[in-house]
Amino acid sequence: MADLLIRNVRPLGGKAVDVSVREGLVSAIGPGLEAPAGTKVEDGAGALLLPGLVEGHTHLDKTVWGSTWYRNEVGPTRLDRIENERSWRAAANHDAAARSLALARDFLANGSTRMRTHADIDTEIGLAHVHATLRTRAELADAIDMQIVAFPQSGLASRPGTEALMDAALREGADIVGGIDPCAIDRDPVRCLDMLFALATRHGKPIDIHLHEPGEMGAFSLDLILERAKALGMHGKVVVSHGFCLGSIPDRDRDALLARMAALNVAIATTAPASSPVPPLSACRAAGVIMFGGNDGIRDTWTPYARPDMLDRAMHIGLRNALRRDDELCWALDCVTTDAARGCGFAGYGLAPGDRADLVLVAAETIAEAVVAAPPRRLVVAGGRVVARGGVLSAA
Amino acid sequence: MADLLIRNVRPLGGKAVDVSVREGLVSAIGPGLEAPAGTKVEDGAGALLLPGLVEGHTHLDKTVWGSTWYRNEVGPTRLDRIENERSWRAAANHDAAARSLALARDFLANGSTRMRTHADIDTEIGLAHVHATLRTRAELADAIDMQIVAFPQSGLASRPGTEALMDAALREGADIVGGIDPCAIDRDPVRCLDMLFALATRHGKPIDIHLHEPGEMGAFSLDLILERAKALGMHGKVVVSHGFCLGSIPDRDRDALLARMAALNVAIATTAPASSPVPPLSACRAAGVIMFGGNDGIRDTWTPYARPDMLDRAMHIGLRNALRRDDELCWALDCVTTDAARGCGFAGYGLAPGDRADLVLVAAETIAEAVVAAPPRRLVVAGGRVVARGGVLSAA
Repeated sequence: MADLLIRNVRPLGGKAVDVSVREGLVSAIGPGLEAPAGTKVEDGAGALLLPGLVEGHTHLDKTVWGSTWYRNEVGPTRLDRIENERSWRAAANHDAAARSLALARDFLANGSTRMRTHADIDTEIGLAHVHATLRTRAELADAIDMQIVAFPQSGLASRPGTEALMDAALREGADIVGGIDPCAIDRDPVRCLDMLFALATRHGKPIDIHLHEPGEMGAFSLDLILERAKALGMHGKVVVSHGFCLGSIPDRDRDALLARMAALNVAIATTAPASSPVPPLSACRAAGVIMFGGNDGIRDTWTPYARPDMLDRAMHIGLRNALRRDDELCWALDCVTTDAARGCGFAGYGLAPGDRADLVLVAAETIAEAVVAAPPRRLVVAGGRVVARGGVLSAA
Repeated sequence: MADLLIRNVRPLGGKAVDVSVREGLVSAIGPGLEAPAGTKVEDGAGALLLPGLVEGHTHLDKTVWGSTWYRNEVGPTRLDRIENERSWRAAANHDAAARSLALARDFLANGSTRMRTHADIDTEIGLAHVHATLRTRAELADAIDMQIVAFPQSGLASRPGTEALMDAALREGADIVGGIDPCAIDRDPVRCLDMLFALATRHGKPIDIHLHEPGEMGAFSLDLILERAKALGMHGKVVVSHGFCLGSIPDRDRDALLARMAALNVAIATTAPASSPVPPLSACRAAGVIMFGGNDGIRDTWTPYARPDMLDRAMHIGLRNALRRDDELCWALDCVTTDAARGCGFAGYGLAPGDRADLVLVAAETIAEAVVAAPPRRLVVAGGRVVARGGVLSAA
């Protein structure tokens, strides 16, 4: 791989510097760097420089991205959507490998170089979606650092046969044990969570559990999760996705849960939906709980919304949390950069020498502008290689 | 003006037809129309055809759109923002005419052909912003049908001298009497509303009042507004902007207010903010109350967010109201097309013969896709003339 020097970029909106890349890593960052013979030189033209963006919670395997429009006529409950998806999948002959690849490529073109994606597992499709996602990961391995969550969308304790599939998925390459609503979907919280934590212990893997349950039901499930995380010494190994309950219980109860989460380093993944209560970003930051961003599903049978662009997601996090000041908008960027890397445990992340050279050049004056305007990506470098210009992937 | 024929477009996602335009109006719509000699013919290439989009509530005069980034360090309350804006305006030598023109042109490039904009009036700037907005309206008169609201941002009853300025603005070309929070900002609801309705009666103009007041305070102000609208026979002449209170009072109280609004044909303008309670679209529709969309401020000292694109605003309305099904997403489109035209009272609106030929060709398969993806505008026709292609305004 040829060495690379990018001239005249402003890291996180700071003063203009040069960045040099060797063997896939940032080797130096500062003014007036030299370009040894054979170095490829790029003109950054004063662009804002961000580290590679991080998608912390998505479902690549479900999307119809790049295909014809999916006409949504689905009923209003979460169970309606789960059942509709299973029947649609069977009828539509959904190609999870092709669709997930199309979507992941557009994520990359927009600067995402690390992703955590949940792959459906159930007794009808078995491991087909895990295998499809593994294929997409292999295809893009040079550019995207991808974590795959084995996700029992239709239930774990409530669907006999699922646990064995989870075991198999974790043996075959899934990185993380997924879960969903121990009360509302699995309907037996203790049995569900005991299974889930046993899978994690058995395979030595972290956990990422979807917790949509509202109010006191969700707070109860979260209580049970934290109890197990503590008992099993899973400090820093548990992520709670959504955690809507933290947006609808009394502040005092919320803060008590946040304090326990901070002590166990349990992070929260949020999509910052406009129409649900959400864990408030400011309260999480004040409590020392890492919150990071994800799109959740993009253009699938669940939702028509969202884009493979983490600056767009940062904007939604900003809107949902009423962030208006420039300093506050930097928090929204944290959610799709540094804090997402910390929350997901991606190594070698950042703009310092020795970090993986994942670099995004954005046509924006300030971080705040990058967040609210989702401006064009002039250049994307992944693992030291230029992979996209102007939002378009390079041929290779 | 040359006659125009657009071939192969799908009105609101229906079957492909042709649309012919004569003397600025739609003259026919149907399959296989003839193009008499001298007619300019455009290939619609199967695009989705929408009527010109309608921006129902914005503040063109405040924006810094197209200028350098405004660094927001403003305090958290609405009064902080009002005072910050007044001092910034004086210090920054804000050019309301140039900025409003830049923003309105980008609205047009994205297909907005009707707009309602609120122009600040206070005892420091007097009518400067009204005059600036009148200039922008004149500049774009061939393409955009623009309503100007005389808006006492800093208060009416509470700031002596403002009422005389409102009188002058309405004489000099403002179309609508604006107002703001009779309790929270003006601090004397009866005096404020009596002044406001007296202005409207004196000038024979409609009213559009910003009502940010939450909960029961807002409901009280709304009660007083409806009382006066009824007593003065202002059926169909009053718009309530924001109406946040309708998203936070008990459903029964909300529905009682909605029933009174429906009877008086009082419409609601919403930005559908993610971080505030909002009047729910479904409840408004069920009650027969027109709800329509607006961006409110765009890139100004109040907010860094928003874009001059009403399909983007429709998406936010969809997200805030949890609209996922294709049929529901049509409601979001209504908010920035038909219902906005009805709510604001724009005449000759639509895609039928005799309507003003304001046509937007969108690269989308369905209305739902147009709402969630804010896709490129292939062509924008305003008043019968092609004004933009691919999001770029024509030279003239």
